[in-house]
Amino acid sequence: MRNTVLEATSTYAPGYTLDQVFYQSPEIYTLEIKSIFSKHWQYAGHISEIPNPGDFFTFEFDRESIIIVRTKSGTIKAHANVCRHRGSQVCLEKKGSTQLFTCPYHAWSYDLEGSLVSAHAMPDDFDKNKNGLTPINVALVGGFIFICLAKTPPSLENLRRDLSGVFELFGFEHLKLAHKETYSIDANWKLAVENYQECYHCAPSHKEFAKVHAMARLPEEFQSLKSAYLKQTNGSVKFQEFNCYFDLAPPGQEGYQYGRNPLLPGLISGGINGQGVAPFLGEISDYDGGASEFMVGPTMFFLMYDDHIVGYRFTPSGRRQCKCDVFWFVHEKATKSVDYLLEELTQLWDVTTLADKKIVSDNQKGVDSQFYCPGRLSTMESFEQHFLDWYIMTLKSAALQT
Amino acid sequence: MRNTVLEATSTYAPGYTLDQVFYQSPEIYTLEIKSIFSKHWQYAGHISEIPNPGDFFTFEFDRESIIIVRTKSGTIKAHANVCRHRGSQVCLEKKGSTQLFTCPYHAWSYDLEGSLVSAHAMPDDFDKNKNGLTPINVALVGGFIFICLAKTPPSLENLRRDLSGVFELFGFEHLKLAHKETYSIDANWKLAVENYQECYHCAPSHKEFAKVHAMARLPEEFQSLKSAYLKQTNGSVKFQEFNCYFDLAPPGQEGYQYGRNPLLPGLISGGINGQGVAPFLGEISDYDGGASEFMVGPTMFFLMYDDHIVGYRFTPSGRRQCKCDVFWFVHEKATKSVDYLLEELTQLWDVTTLADKKIVSDNQKGVDSQFYCPGRLSTMESFEQHFLDWYIMTLKSAALQT
Amino acid sequence: MRNTVLEATSTYAPGYTLDQVFYQSPEIYTLEIKSIFSKHWQYAGHISEIPNPGDFFTFEFDRESIIIVRTKSGTIKAHANVCRHRGSQVCLEKKGSTQLFTCPYHAWSYDLEGSLVSAHAMPDDFDKNKNGLTPINVALVGGFIFICLAKTPPSLENLRRDLSGVFELFGFEHLKLAHKETYSIDANWKLAVENYQECYHCAPSHKEFAKVHAMARLPEEFQSLKSAYLKQTNGSVKFQEFNCYFDLAPPGQEGYQYGRNPLLPGLISGGINGQGVAPFLGEISDYDGGASEFMVGPTMFFLMYDDHIVGYRFTPSGRRQCKCDVFWFVHEKATKSVDYLLEELTQLWDVTTLADKKIVSDNQKGVDSQFYCPGRLSTMESFEQHFLDWYIMTLKSAALQT
Repeated sequence: MRNTVLEATSTYAPGYTLDQVFYQSPEIYTLEIKSIFSKHWQYAGHISEIPNPGDFFTFEFDRESIIIVRTKSGTIKAHANVCRHRGSQVCLEKKGSTQLFTCPYHAWSYDLEGSLVSAHAMPDDFDKNKNGLTPINVALVGGFIFICLAKTPPSLENLRRDLSGVFELFGFEHLKLAHKETYSIDANWKLAVENYQECYHCAPSHKEFAKVHAMARLPEEFQSLKSAYLKQTNGSVKFQEFNCYFDLAPPGQEGYQYGRNPLLPGLISGGINGQGVAPFLGEISDYDGGASEFMVGPTMFFLMYDDHIVGYRFTPSGRRQCKCDVFWFVHEKATKSVDYLLEELTQLWDVTTLADKKIVSDNQKGVDSQFYCPGRLSTMESFEQHFLDWYIMTLKSAALQT
Repeated sequence: MRNTVLEATSTYAPGYTLDQVFYQSPEIYTLEIKSIFSKHWQYAGHISEIPNPGDFFTFEFDRESIIIVRTKSGTIKAHANVCRHRGSQVCLEKKGSTQLFTCPYHAWSYDLEGSLVSAHAMPDDFDKNKNGLTPINVALVGGFIFICLAKTPPSLENLRRDLSGVFELFGFEHLKLAHKETYSIDANWKLAVENYQECYHCAPSHKEFAKVHAMARLPEEFQSLKSAYLKQTNGSVKFQEFNCYFDLAPPGQEGYQYGRNPLLPGLISGGINGQGVAPFLGEISDYDGGASEFMVGPTMFFLMYDDHIVGYRFTPSGRRQCKCDVFWFVHEKATKSVDYLLEELTQLWDVTTLADKKIVSDNQKGVDSQFYCPGRLSTMESFEQHFLDWYIMTLKSAALQT
Repeated sequence: MRNTVLEATSTYAPGYTLDQVFYQSPEIYTLEIKSIFSKHWQYAGHISEIPNPGDFFTFEFDRESIIIVRTKSGTIKAHANVCRHRGSQVCLEKKGSTQLFTCPYHAWSYDLEGSLVSAHAMPDDFDKNKNGLTPINVALVGGFIFICLAKTPPSLENLRRDLSGVFELFGFEHLKLAHKETYSIDANWKLAVENYQECYHCAPSHKEFAKVHAMARLPEEFQSLKSAYLKQTNGSVKFQEFNCYFDLAPPGQEGYQYGRNPLLPGLISGGINGQGVAPFLGEISDYDGGASEFMVGPTMFFLMYDDHIVGYRFTPSGRRQCKCDVFWFVHEKATKSVDYLLEELTQLWDVTTLADKKIVSDNQKGVDSQFYCPGRLSTMESFEQHFLDWYIMTLKSAALQT
């Protein structure tokens, strides 16, 4: 594996897309699971989804399933969904409430903390204390629950230091999940993540998005719209910028990025025509005509309007298949069909994600051809460039350690 | 392959389940087909399914198809279902009656003995005598037909010596197949075979079975029920025990196991509530409140009630898929809907096998996780332990010979 | 790969079918794509399908997609369907008319010649002239369009020298595609090509074909029918024979074969009972009771009746799957439902190809068995023998160059 990866990474030229092998090789995919998806923080869900002790849901990617549960003490824990006896999945429901996780195979039972509390007919020297569910790291980012499979996860300290004011402002702990949709994409996960990271395609491919977001405009026009927009900042945390993402993250810290960008003049939120769609979030009391981008780790992206937040999570299902889960959040006190209409809330990003699903799978088809070769990136793909630099660095470093 | 296998087998610790690699590796799967499924006796069917010369059926597993046919002399033969010309399957029907097997491609014709009798336009030096269908070993165990792909199959001599009295008693040669059902399972074949070999899961997972069979009880209670049950033996062959299975089989002999276990007090057979479901088998004239377990080779299991027999056959369809075929046998003279009701006959083991199909595929899901690690076996999984010991020994020995 | 292939080719014995490994190995499949499908001419379509500038269609095989388009000057060009930016497929429609190929992802636009004419927001040193669609070789064989992915394709000079009279006679440039049908086959592409190349199976498997074509008869009878038929030749180019195919092709020349064979006495064309089905082609003015076989490259076969032409193209979709596209051509002036009935035109070869689809997939099933071994070819499989000799030679030579 080491040689395959090092040979592949040596082909990388900054400013160009990746070589075909990165979108096809089983060895590289295996290393990605190990060195990216098992080492970084991934978004699992929001605290409001499990308000009471015993409430749980599962998060799945590739061949993994993780149980996220609120314990009796009210804290949130995560466990590998693998029985310590014969390895069956312990929890077959995607969501629910329970006091014990009882394996459906031989009825080994684990409490909410993951401790094995019951296993009959075991040999005398069997130690229950050494056979709890494997614990998985959990961290809260505001009210958003992240999990990390690594023994020593990257630190979230800087992120919290820089952004706790933002979390307060948008009321991260006072949201509710209004809707979730899963989009299955016939492409390697990187093509989907690369797609999310650039707006070079927005004007040609997303006419609904381009009617609302200034980011779809050419660099000069966007910069001029952004300058005009930022005149209103008044030093609010809302308008801070932090670019500590991907290759810019300090060693040992999880990457993150926060910044605010204008909508087109006169528009206020992510409704299909730029209209507002729900009550204000957190401490926000007025539309400012912008939306914040917030990224945590390599595969979770939030788009924060003044009245709702849209979250995007990318997970691999295999070498050539991935999932994009889209989450729509509103204020916890907003009532469906009274304070917001689900269709108005979800329309813009549903239509945009459906378009991307097609774009990305057509991208994979071309990348599979013997005539594909790395192409030059535009000036509107600089964020993607950071991703690619970081990706190659991460993979190379992982290969050198094998 | 040798190194992969030897490295894998060296991880095995008796008393624990297998490492993940055994449920995933393509190299190991290939070696299993070669050293287990192509070396041992597999159940093909019962003599009553092909009563007349020319009657045939096929048996399929992995990428193999075998024709089992009654010849003109009345004996039973088996042939590889592969034309000696261009390799087409010769027999496309699963079951039927014929005097010649004529290849659907170029009409090469083989008689029931497998001899090539017609092939037109062949070069002068072509020798029909050297181009018959490849013969496959056939053996009868009572009236049950087994086949073995090996040139030198393991001997069935000991098995016949020990159990011919049992075959007579249960009238193996006077059965008929009342029903067959195929359950496709999304899991490696070993997870299904392991599942069949232990009753640790019976109480939690099979409430219908647990209401009928004492084996679902904890070891102490089971032993006490068994002791009470065995007081009635009177030296009948029915109550003999032979444990010459898996690692306990003498060199060169096919493994087998026979023993009789009690139903719960007051119950008599494998109806859904422990009731009788069909006329007595063979020389049996009364219910004794028990059922016999009879195993031949690594993947065929019979459960013999006084009035019917249920057979289970496990076959791999690929690394992560297998089939469980369940066969229900009654006395050859029993008339459907008069002497037995199909639903009553099949209900207990249909519901139990459907539950196992789900259990076993959920087991595979967990085994695929990076958090799976071999777990400790309970005291109720000793039979499975023999299987695992034998499996590792067999694989290791096969790898050393490559 | 080199060792795998050389070991495999060393098992080949002329007069026998190929070893199993050739129908299963991923390494061999990869080499076939590289050394056969990317080196030889493949049939793409007919000029009449793209009569006007801007008309285009795509041709797909394995993981490739090629755009074939008529340019403003009226010539026909082919381009790899891969955007030079991020690699998306540029053209998502199978057929249509356009003035620009605009990538659906970021709107890079290419003209009909494949030149990049528009790409916004690119760095200053980006050179549009170096970023056109990758050109693919195109050649016309009469009015039939062939493409070749190789930098230096095999020459078609000899073919044109020998057969231009035939092209004229049959009016290759004055045909229209009356119907196309795609048959997906669950088998390695070679089993399908081998099937097309011999008529040993015609009598047993294709009763409709066998009622029309003398070729289904045994060698002696066929030769006697052919001798009788050829008495009418009068030196016409229609009755020439050229056998420069497969291993008989001179170095550097694409293989081809042309010859004419009789229908059964009294029959005139490829209607289901040997009847005529459409107006005469080209300069033909009478039925002569025969049909021409014409082969170009390893996977394109034409069957030329006096009143219509049937074309067969075989393409791999993967190791164990392929496609057979069948094309029915009539005179360009023939009007559907007036001069010909689609059902009458297509019936014989639709029913025959459906039968072959089943035959070939059953062949693959048997070839997958451990009991498959190369079988002896009949005297009616000499054409297939040439294919196999050439195939082994091609693969061996490609392996030696890796």
